[in-house]
Amino acid sequence: MDEDFAFHFLNTCVRPVHPLPYVIGQTISVAGEFGGKLTEIGKGPLKGLTEMDNQTGLSKELVAEIECLLREISVVVKRKGREILNEFPITPPQFTALLWLNDEGDMTIGDLSQKMYLACSTMTDLVDRMEKNGLVERVRDDRDRRVVRIHLLKKGKEIIGDVMETRQSYLSQVLSRFSEEEVREMAKHLSLLHREIK
Amino acid sequence: MDEDFAFHFLNTCVRPVHPLPYVIGQTISVAGEFGGKLTEIGKGPLKGLTEMDNQTGLSKELVAEIECLLREISVVVKRKGREILNEFPITPPQFTALLWLNDEGDMTIGDLSQKMYLACSTMTDLVDRMEKNGLVERVRDDRDRRVVRIHLLKKGKEIIGDVMETRQSYLSQVLSRFSEEEVREMAKHLSLLHREIK
Repeated sequence: MDEDFAFHFLNTCVRPVHPLPYVIGQTISVAGEFGGKLTEIGKGPLKGLTEMDNQTGLSKELVAEIECLLREISVVVKRKGREILNEFPITPPQFTALLWLNDEGDMTIGDLSQKMYLACSTMTDLVDRMEKNGLVERVRDDRDRRVVRIHLLKKGKEIIGDVMETRQSYLSQVLSRFSEEEVREMAKHLSLLHREIK
Repeated sequence: MDEDFAFHFLNTCVRPVHPLPYVIGQTISVAGEFGGKLTEIGKGPLKGLTEMDNQTGLSKELVAEIECLLREISVVVKRKGREILNEFPITPPQFTALLWLNDEGDMTIGDLSQKMYLACSTMTDLVDRMEKNGLVERVRDDRDRRVVRIHLLKKGKEIIGDVMETRQSYLSQVLSRFSEEEVREMAKHLSLLHREIK
């Protein structure tokens, strides 16, 4: 097993079938995924894979697996989201802005650009286009007329609703391959993770 | 409960405590999350929330919850990833390109730009900067000298390794709040989802 392969192994979500914890030291055995043949490799590139984290007591291999799964799932969620948005008359950043306005209520361009990690000028262009398309409108603050906030309009809400329905319908197909019990367990664990990861 | 609130409810990951399945028809009750007070609302904006999907047999509410969790977790994974990259001398798209090269081996600019949904000219600029920083190099194909591929260099691999270690260390802290059994269950369910969502 050369360094390249070991490195690739580190960066895939494949879980070695060898029981945990691995022995740290001169050699480590990785079996099963490589045709069942035990392969011995020296310490070095795979070191981090086998250590236990002293602070958390979790095997680094388990943490690495979850990191990889989360990263790859996020990529698919993003890609699939973009594919779905292709059917609608808005761009991905416009959709993100609509979601923020829907969740937080009226926001200034400054607030929105901060939430979306965009420059104010970029955000202004984005809002201009959304206002032109009747998705949002600029509203002056009653108490302080200098403050202008972006307000989500009915058409914007409807698009969010339609996009959500398409996303849920796609996910429904994916989840239909599992039992309801499995899907409930999945929701429970995603929810636990969601609560702590913020 | 006005339409705005109902809509907001649809788009948060809060799970109503009322037992499933809801009754579809004239009225629906949502309790618990709203201070335990039973609130009756007409059909309309909440309709989709309570229907069972005839094709999959899963409640739409459960699917909506998972859609929301996946979307929000993806946002946090992306944001946290960006925060971590701030400590390293590469940008988020550069990191994505390095990961692709690491996973797929040498790739042409065309292949890379396709994988990353970027224009070829943008990809060329990205590769130019990475080559200048010693992360990758351009290599000519031995058999067809017209073909140029991008090859990941040792420095690029080292950066991936360092970034991964930082990501895993952060995740390790998050996961330390759960029991090992819970983390294993989480990995199992993420893995099931990962297998099907592609």
